Amino acid sequence: MTRSMYDAITGYMRECMKDSAHDAEHIYRVLYSALRIASETKGPVDNDILIAACLLHDIARDEQFANPKVCHAQAGGIKAKAFLLKNNWIEERAEHVNRCISTHRFRGDNIPESIEAKILFDADKLDAAGCIGIARTLVYQGQVSHPIYSTDADGICDGKNKEDPESFYKEYNFKLKNVYSRFYTPAAKRLAKKMKKAAEEFFSDLSAQMNGIYVQKARLERFIT
Amino acid sequence: MTRSMYDAITGYMRECMKDSAHDAEHIYRVLYSALRIASETKGPVDNDILIAACLLHDIARDEQFANPKVCHAQAGGIKAKAFLLKNNWIEERAEHVNRCISTHRFRGDNIPESIEAKILFDADKLDAAGCIGIARTLVYQGQVSHPIYSTDADGICDGKNKEDPESFYKEYNFKLKNVYSRFYTPAAKRLAKKMKKAAEEFFSDLSAQMNGIYVQKARLERFIT
Repeated sequence: MTRSMYDAITGYMRECMKDSAHDAEHIYRVLYSALRIASETKGPVDNDILIAACLLHDIARDEQFANPKVCHAQAGGIKAKAFLLKNNWIEERAEHVNRCISTHRFRGDNIPESIEAKILFDADKLDAAGCIGIARTLVYQGQVSHPIYSTDADGICDGKNKEDPESFYKEYNFKLKNVYSRFYTPAAKRLAKKMKKAAEEFFSDLSAQMNGIYVQKARLERFIT
Repeated sequence: MTRSMYDAITGYMRECMKDSAHDAEHIYRVLYSALRIASETKGPVDNDILIAACLLHDIARDEQFANPKVCHAQAGGIKAKAFLLKNNWIEERAEHVNRCISTHRFRGDNIPESIEAKILFDADKLDAAGCIGIARTLVYQGQVSHPIYSTDADGICDGKNKEDPESFYKEYNFKLKNVYSRFYTPAAKRLAKKMKKAAEEFFSDLSAQMNGIYVQKARLERFIT
């Protein structure tokens, strides 16, 4: 890829991104991780397709944020393709980038097919693994005004039930905990395995510390008459 | 304390609190931790003073958020005293609560003097220790749109310099890391010591994972011509 094409793509990406958990640094981490996975992948990888798909994969986050019915993966793929066609990419290669982006979503039904799509999916999911996934998810809870955990009459909800209100605990149980079984490439599986233990330890220590405090609640009743 | 006084104080606290990192659950954790510290403290503790001070210690957060020149500890103490006087507390006891609240701030110059003020200070600081401190700080970074780390031309800033832009890394280095040397009561010192290792491990694992990604940046240059 030429320097000027790279600069045009990053410029467009920066124009489209505004929030801080899915900010430009996430994009660069996904790009660097993707290039590492590609370097450890047997068989050919089209690095220009991969670089463009990584840089543009979250450009429709704002649209989904404004309207949760919009899927940022599908909308982002379409936006990316239009941008690349305008920048003289041929139909076939712009469409390849579109398909990579439209299949990168953890919760989506569309499954990545090409090696470039699988690498983007895995690199994006690596950013939800380990301490990075924990940190990004907590920042995101703050952005959308969700708490660390929710409570009911018995104290802290463990966030394991679909009916529990949105919280970091629930996001951990329904997304972060399950990311490790979803990788396509052997390189990403290996990297994720190393990161898993640190995330599990953090969540287990956090829960133990929180529960250690709530168990003290019984003391209060002694002083209320 | 009577049930109706307790309900009046919690009702006023809930009226005043709106954001989610310093939300009502933080207040209850501080209250429960304070009662635990009190139970392990030699010498008498006035539990009614302590309960009122814990419940009301952050009621001026919104004022400080709207105008950073306002100190929420001092403003909160004044608001709490006025509320308690209106609810038939005598001047001396309402003023005692005011002094507890006005000296609870980590960054403040006012030092807690009474045992109740020291316990509130310590219980509040325990909520900045361990994984709880990590989680609350990350949520807060999201609320105020600060990133996990900032970057410069060399990659990730370690956040150890006063000139570095605001970030979780900087907050960890300037606040969270230093909370452990600031406790007044032996009980809080003991509890914090147990929590410290988990926080240190998270920050060290997070930094290692982030640095492991940024070191891959060199690969990009091979594909840009």
